Amino acid sequence: MTRIVYLNGRYLEENRAQVSVFDRGFLFADAVYEVTAVLNSKLVDFAGHFARLQRSCRELGLTLPVSEQQLRDIHQELLIRNQLHEGGIYLQLTRGAAGDRDFCAPADLPPTLLLFTQARPLKDAPQASTGIHVVSLPDIRWHRRDIKTVQLLAPCLAKELAHARGADDAWLVEDGFVTEGSSSNAYIVTADGTVVTRPLSNDILHGITRQALMQLAADGGIKVEERAFTIDEALAAKEAFISSATTVVWPVVSLDGQTIGDGKPGPVSLRLRQLYLQLAEQSTQG
Amino acid sequence: MTRIVYLNGRYLEENRAQVSVFDRGFLFADAVYEVTAVLNSKLVDFAGHFARLQRSCRELGLTLPVSEQQLRDIHQELLIRNQLHEGGIYLQLTRGAAGDRDFCAPADLPPTLLLFTQARPLKDAPQASTGIHVVSLPDIRWHRRDIKTVQLLAPCLAKELAHARGADDAWLVEDGFVTEGSSSNAYIVTADGTVVTRPLSNDILHGITRQALMQLAADGGIKVEERAFTIDEALAAKEAFISSATTVVWPVVSLDGQTIGDGKPGPVSLRLRQLYLQLAEQSTQG
Repeated sequence: MTRIVYLNGRYLEENRAQVSVFDRGFLFADAVYEVTAVLNSKLVDFAGHFARLQRSCRELGLTLPVSEQQLRDIHQELLIRNQLHEGGIYLQLTRGAAGDRDFCAPADLPPTLLLFTQARPLKDAPQASTGIHVVSLPDIRWHRRDIKTVQLLAPCLAKELAHARGADDAWLVEDGFVTEGSSSNAYIVTADGTVVTRPLSNDILHGITRQALMQLAADGGIKVEERAFTIDEALAAKEAFISSATTVVWPVVSLDGQTIGDGKPGPVSLRLRQLYLQLAEQSTQG
Repeated sequence: MTRIVYLNGRYLEENRAQVSVFDRGFLFADAVYEVTAVLNSKLVDFAGHFARLQRSCRELGLTLPVSEQQLRDIHQELLIRNQLHEGGIYLQLTRGAAGDRDFCAPADLPPTLLLFTQARPLKDAPQASTGIHVVSLPDIRWHRRDIKTVQLLAPCLAKELAHARGADDAWLVEDGFVTEGSSSNAYIVTADGTVVTRPLSNDILHGITRQALMQLAADGGIKVEERAFTIDEALAAKEAFISSATTVVWPVVSLDGQTIGDGKPGPVSLRLRQLYLQLAEQSTQG
């Protein structure tokens, strides 16, 4: 079965979904995106992703051409048309295709809106039980990482370099402190069981899963400290993990070739993952 | 007349030139570009732009699907088909369209190669005689500005902000020093007539026009110092200017609302512009 993708009001077979070479998403990376997880054929925290999308648009002066309900309907239609049970829905909004290339966009350009499904295991992802291996790399990204733009070349290069070093992914370091994972937020768990993660700023993505985990930790009596941490602190931590919409929580079992804790997924990481999946299962039922 | 653009081996009417939504240039800004100036219907310093394109490809592990001669032929064909007398030819090379979105590209993906012409005045651009007004803004771009990638959202935002402040363009500042213009290299001329511009590094684009200007200055007895300078130094300078392939040299006559020198295009700026245009005219004749 070929996928059906949504592009500017139409549902198309994936190999027929094309944009103009003058689209500003293609020429200038003048575009934002979101990925909403899908569990039990239902959207997980659509409202959270929509709120962040609105924020990204506001920061860049982009106009979303559909209402929240219309966008929710498009997501639902894609779920049905592609019989997606588990995975995610990718959304990209660009400033649109002008008639020519110019750094300055003409006013009132019709934006380009693209959505497509991606099937992948969420609940039973093997990385959740094995944990992942990460390496630290310099964070060379631009300085508005809070805006979820498609300027993703640095994360692509970081993942490629991590794989070349035999690891699964990278943690990015700036001025001596971890910012985040290459496409996830980063956490450690200290000796006394405190979860430490970098506070929100322009330096990191404002993770929707991060936001939910913070609440679940608070409700579950898990202490959280929002502060920057170093690679040395991470190496001395009892546990480490990453979070994102499509990984939820994946334990990090080694960093730069050194095991973290006992080298196995830790109890705090796994508990947060379980709490999140429970919440998601509840919210996607009924 | 609609433009004829080149896309992956075909010459197409511009409104028929489309790429897959799964193209990595569109999803990840995983792409590089070049703009070669056109004067008297001839390419200016094609060899220089080709050498930089090769460097960009090497840095990112991108594969150019055509030889230097083939690429030159495509440029020539576009010149003829579009009867371009003056302006530039834009080239973009992406890592190609994979079947799905994944930060890690599959091996041996066929790259996407796009070229199109842009008619614009080069010799008689009004900005050359009026000069331009710039404002300083923080440089928030990623840290590999030496690679000419399409991650151009920061320059787009900088130009937009400059226009909102009544200026023509922006000079970007990092750690107290000017890096470059939003899409050009930046220069000042000190009281003793020395041209000062930032040395090559990962912090700035390795301008092809900059390279030619350095040689012309040396040959013409104009002293050049390659070092970083501050906004305060620029405000105290006798002259300031920018360079790029499609502007050649444009004098900067004000910075953050304060006039530079006597507020008119300066003699060193204009001489370098003239020397470059003479060289370009010679090289495009015969």
